[in-house]
Amino acid sequence: MNSAVKTIGVLTSGGDAPGMNAAIRAVVRTAIANGVRVMGIKRGYAGLLEEDIEEMDTLSVSNIIQLGGTILYTARCKEFREKEYQEKAAEICRKHGIDGIVVIGGDGSFQGASKLAALGINTVGVPGTIDLDIACTEYTIGFDTAINTAMEAMDKLRDTSESHERCSIVEVMGRTAGHIALWTGIASGAEYILTTEEYDGNIQKIIEKIQQRHKIGKKNHVIVNAEGVGNSFEMAKMIEEATGVETRATVLGHIQRGGNPTCKDRVYASAMGAKAVELLCDGKTNRVVGYTNGEFVDYDIQAALDMEKGLDPYLFHITKKLTTY
Amino acid sequence: MNSAVKTIGVLTSGGDAPGMNAAIRAVVRTAIANGVRVMGIKRGYAGLLEEDIEEMDTLSVSNIIQLGGTILYTARCKEFREKEYQEKAAEICRKHGIDGIVVIGGDGSFQGASKLAALGINTVGVPGTIDLDIACTEYTIGFDTAINTAMEAMDKLRDTSESHERCSIVEVMGRTAGHIALWTGIASGAEYILTTEEYDGNIQKIIEKIQQRHKIGKKNHVIVNAEGVGNSFEMAKMIEEATGVETRATVLGHIQRGGNPTCKDRVYASAMGAKAVELLCDGKTNRVVGYTNGEFVDYDIQAALDMEKGLDPYLFHITKKLTTY
Amino acid sequence: MNSAVKTIGVLTSGGDAPGMNAAIRAVVRTAIANGVRVMGIKRGYAGLLEEDIEEMDTLSVSNIIQLGGTILYTARCKEFREKEYQEKAAEICRKHGIDGIVVIGGDGSFQGASKLAALGINTVGVPGTIDLDIACTEYTIGFDTAINTAMEAMDKLRDTSESHERCSIVEVMGRTAGHIALWTGIASGAEYILTTEEYDGNIQKIIEKIQQRHKIGKKNHVIVNAEGVGNSFEMAKMIEEATGVETRATVLGHIQRGGNPTCKDRVYASAMGAKAVELLCDGKTNRVVGYTNGEFVDYDIQAALDMEKGLDPYLFHITKKLTTY
Amino acid sequence: MNSAVKTIGVLTSGGDAPGMNAAIRAVVRTAIANGVRVMGIKRGYAGLLEEDIEEMDTLSVSNIIQLGGTILYTARCKEFREKEYQEKAAEICRKHGIDGIVVIGGDGSFQGASKLAALGINTVGVPGTIDLDIACTEYTIGFDTAINTAMEAMDKLRDTSESHERCSIVEVMGRTAGHIALWTGIASGAEYILTTEEYDGNIQKIIEKIQQRHKIGKKNHVIVNAEGVGNSFEMAKMIEEATGVETRATVLGHIQRGGNPTCKDRVYASAMGAKAVELLCDGKTNRVVGYTNGEFVDYDIQAALDMEKGLDPYLFHITKKLTTY
Repeated sequence: MNSAVKTIGVLTSGGDAPGMNAAIRAVVRTAIANGVRVMGIKRGYAGLLEEDIEEMDTLSVSNIIQLGGTILYTARCKEFREKEYQEKAAEICRKHGIDGIVVIGGDGSFQGASKLAALGINTVGVPGTIDLDIACTEYTIGFDTAINTAMEAMDKLRDTSESHERCSIVEVMGRTAGHIALWTGIASGAEYILTTEEYDGNIQKIIEKIQQRHKIGKKNHVIVNAEGVGNSFEMAKMIEEATGVETRATVLGHIQRGGNPTCKDRVYASAMGAKAVELLCDGKTNRVVGYTNGEFVDYDIQAALDMEKGLDPYLFHITKKLTTY
Repeated sequence: MNSAVKTIGVLTSGGDAPGMNAAIRAVVRTAIANGVRVMGIKRGYAGLLEEDIEEMDTLSVSNIIQLGGTILYTARCKEFREKEYQEKAAEICRKHGIDGIVVIGGDGSFQGASKLAALGINTVGVPGTIDLDIACTEYTIGFDTAINTAMEAMDKLRDTSESHERCSIVEVMGRTAGHIALWTGIASGAEYILTTEEYDGNIQKIIEKIQQRHKIGKKNHVIVNAEGVGNSFEMAKMIEEATGVETRATVLGHIQRGGNPTCKDRVYASAMGAKAVELLCDGKTNRVVGYTNGEFVDYDIQAALDMEKGLDPYLFHITKKLTTY
Repeated sequence: MNSAVKTIGVLTSGGDAPGMNAAIRAVVRTAIANGVRVMGIKRGYAGLLEEDIEEMDTLSVSNIIQLGGTILYTARCKEFREKEYQEKAAEICRKHGIDGIVVIGGDGSFQGASKLAALGINTVGVPGTIDLDIACTEYTIGFDTAINTAMEAMDKLRDTSESHERCSIVEVMGRTAGHIALWTGIASGAEYILTTEEYDGNIQKIIEKIQQRHKIGKKNHVIVNAEGVGNSFEMAKMIEEATGVETRATVLGHIQRGGNPTCKDRVYASAMGAKAVELLCDGKTNRVVGYTNGEFVDYDIQAALDMEKGLDPYLFHITKKLTTY
Repeated sequence: MNSAVKTIGVLTSGGDAPGMNAAIRAVVRTAIANGVRVMGIKRGYAGLLEEDIEEMDTLSVSNIIQLGGTILYTARCKEFREKEYQEKAAEICRKHGIDGIVVIGGDGSFQGASKLAALGINTVGVPGTIDLDIACTEYTIGFDTAINTAMEAMDKLRDTSESHERCSIVEVMGRTAGHIALWTGIASGAEYILTTEEYDGNIQKIIEKIQQRHKIGKKNHVIVNAEGVGNSFEMAKMIEEATGVETRATVLGHIQRGGNPTCKDRVYASAMGAKAVELLCDGKTNRVVGYTNGEFVDYDIQAALDMEKGLDPYLFHITKKLTTY
């Protein structure tokens, strides 16, 4: 194989997501299989600026595919938005012989990757975020694990909510996007799914529905709130006061970021990691890997950042028929 | 078999706990195997007062052993503390031919059981609470499932806490008792376990330890807080401000009450349910079932309520050697 | 809404798969939301021939989305391949006023659906099989749960296989297709993935690789066998004899068919069930629902049965770089 | 602290069991907290004879409490039954300054420990086996995880067995003891639990019960077989032929040995590891740690090996009332 790059770096940046380790493993093993050296960069761009860099071999990634988190650690790095630090980073790459970088992270991390590309370091982004809020791809690393974690928590909450004939509000992650809420709401048979994209803030409507349902004998009610929709504890209080139905709020929080990755997250993260290395070997730069229409593809980073996506319209459509009982 | 009772009622009262369904199933099947009728009483003492009572047969409890929650529902019932309502309940029992009752719940529920016993209805209590805070027994229904649920959540939190090199505070249930905190703290390798029994409220000491550990290169810190120890969010803020280590609090909340019961909870709950019926068949009343010194035993309810217990001293002892690194 | 059908039947046929209950629930609720009656047909075509039919309402499908198996039961029915019984079935449908049927199952079940369509009963198939061996769709109900179940079992096997420095052969389901083997092999970091599509039966090659790996100090070896590739126990014996490495075979078997469905299986099965009803309401017949290129679509049953698919080529491609270490 | 030993070794021997890592961690940390050096001995007695020995510190056991298997590896070692090799082992211990050893394993491993004790190396055994077949203790490391793993597999099998109205035979581990079968049989609501201790080999009786149950409309039947009770596949064939009920056998196999340990296994294994070190520090030798009557205790190894235990009589008693429906 005649690779366009000789040595690549790999880093994880932004919020961690289950499956990142599978992607790192695939990057390392594909690179080595292609005759390319791999340097692990710790703690994202922050570690790059501090030269926290170490060579990796196939054994460095043995027995990690099943682990949550990221063995390379991750951090946010505000400095990296400044030109000065971007140039310093490119310099460090050159010093270490790194002529290509795989950046596993979200939109913010891809901004940084694009800057490095402009400074002559070949870069490819891999979408890693539990929030699914990257427009150019139907899949992001960690989403599948996060929705299963949240759904299993909701299954447990329903047990106790039903035994006590309570109303239960569950707040899930998602930053400004309602994907986790939509999927887990459908999967847990929630009565109400409130997303930032679609919820109009009219709690009175929800209260009335609960009152109606309560009258016809429904014993429990589950409301899934996307992060950002409102304060779940205050909503619980308002609902309890208006309906007389005991109401409890649970904020699932950071457990949604952890855990052993699901099969899909391990397989797709592996494929995306491999794809990123193949792009670099082919001399591509300023690209981001995506999964669209049943295939692993790649886009120009800037074009990808300019795309927009909302909630899956068919999934949103069926919630109206499945969740009103 | 010559049973002292002809018809027994069974109810679940207070907070629900995984394994209660296994106990109900054992009560029903053991009773029927002994030639005794069984009436299911819904929503604890509240349902008894409303005569929400239905006969159960072996099929009523098919395929429920693996389910969390309680198929009989549960509720708290303040009225039942008053003599007037206790007498009404005894009257209702007599009206339905119920000459024995199995009460699955916690200390509060046993108080009620004792009152019914005094009014001539034979009663046996079965300890059901995730909090393990019933002094007369080493085992309560639901504790084993709850600690596994909490521990698995902590395993997930550690993934992300370590990737981000954060301090993580996890608040677990337990009412006024630190059993859940102690067990899950040991099991998750937490650095600090704060229980109401042992924590002196000196957060400064914890801050200093984190600072020391941080200096020698420790990347993450996990603190397990028992419910009641303090406000986990405020503690997180104090620690972050004092140490500079990003600190996040998670309150696990009601997910700890739900979920499919573990093997131990299914088996011991089955044994306790069976034992309760055998006691009633033998003409015993005002008793509570316990598990002590490797055996299923029974105590006088009042004697049981007067017992006291603290944290397991040997488990508390080992935390000092296992958690300081 | 002006539906082309007034009463639909729904049945599950062939091997059961986790998520079938989510599909049934979506069929029932979407139908009722569209003003259409729904009849549940038990045990597939066998139950149809025996008129084992019951009306369903929204409560019939409460609290089932999280359950494995199928509340309608399933069976194989050889008789249904004969014209005589197909006509009898169509007659029974007419007798019960059923003018549309949703058939949840695999290719064999769709053959039957097509026959009913030809006899004037509007039919739509929904792909339900853990094996993913339906050519017209990238998704089949149950596959996602099955691969996670198998992968979790392999994670456990690796623990003990590594502790004992053994070689471990795991046989997974898939009928004549290697999809489960391919996905779980990648996800569990298996060293060898043997599928009916790609494995040439040359065990000598595997033995030599194990010997090479063993020499350079590799402690354990995991081989994933697709059903049909060969007798796993005999292969274990051959490998142990040739290499001296203790080798154990495990046939995962029917546990892969059960279990609470994953989030994806619940969500996609719900979408497919809803889609099937919408097709019937629109007057469509002899169609099968699929998921292709990121969308829920539908095909003519015969055209769908004539399609072919092999293993995902990109996933197969990456195994060569990821599994040789 | 004034410890009777200066340097201890720790090894795992025999079959691995989830929780062994928690015990190793507790041994290492308790020793270091007591001012004692710790040497990790790989692959049990085999590694001791090959001087596969390495010093451990508190970081060696970081982040392992949640892992199945054993980081020290394990092996069976036939040579160690011979005096010559026992003496060689004692010699090696003296050469490395090891004056105490913690042996985590089963009865066979304790025999070896006793021999070392007689040769002047202080030894303490810790009961580690998923089979619970160590007479001196109510708890052995790994049993709790194994029964939960087996039970979860049975929950999955029941889903599919019920959907297909089949009879399902599940074979669980346990060597010559039926503890795993008894516990998981109760917990999964099995209709028949066959243990080597109690099953008389009369399959005709089981066939008749299935026929009776079948007649009154029971849809599925679950039989739990302990290892050693008979060939589950042949039994399945006999039952299917005699009853006409489709019958499938599943041998759960080695998945029962793996997996992340449960909370109880992590906590009790930690306590036992700590206890073993405390005994050595106190100058004790030829002891085995046990859990009896609610306490962690210790026995003379020979006395412990002479004890006998059968199935828990009360649990066996209740199966007669709970499993006949």
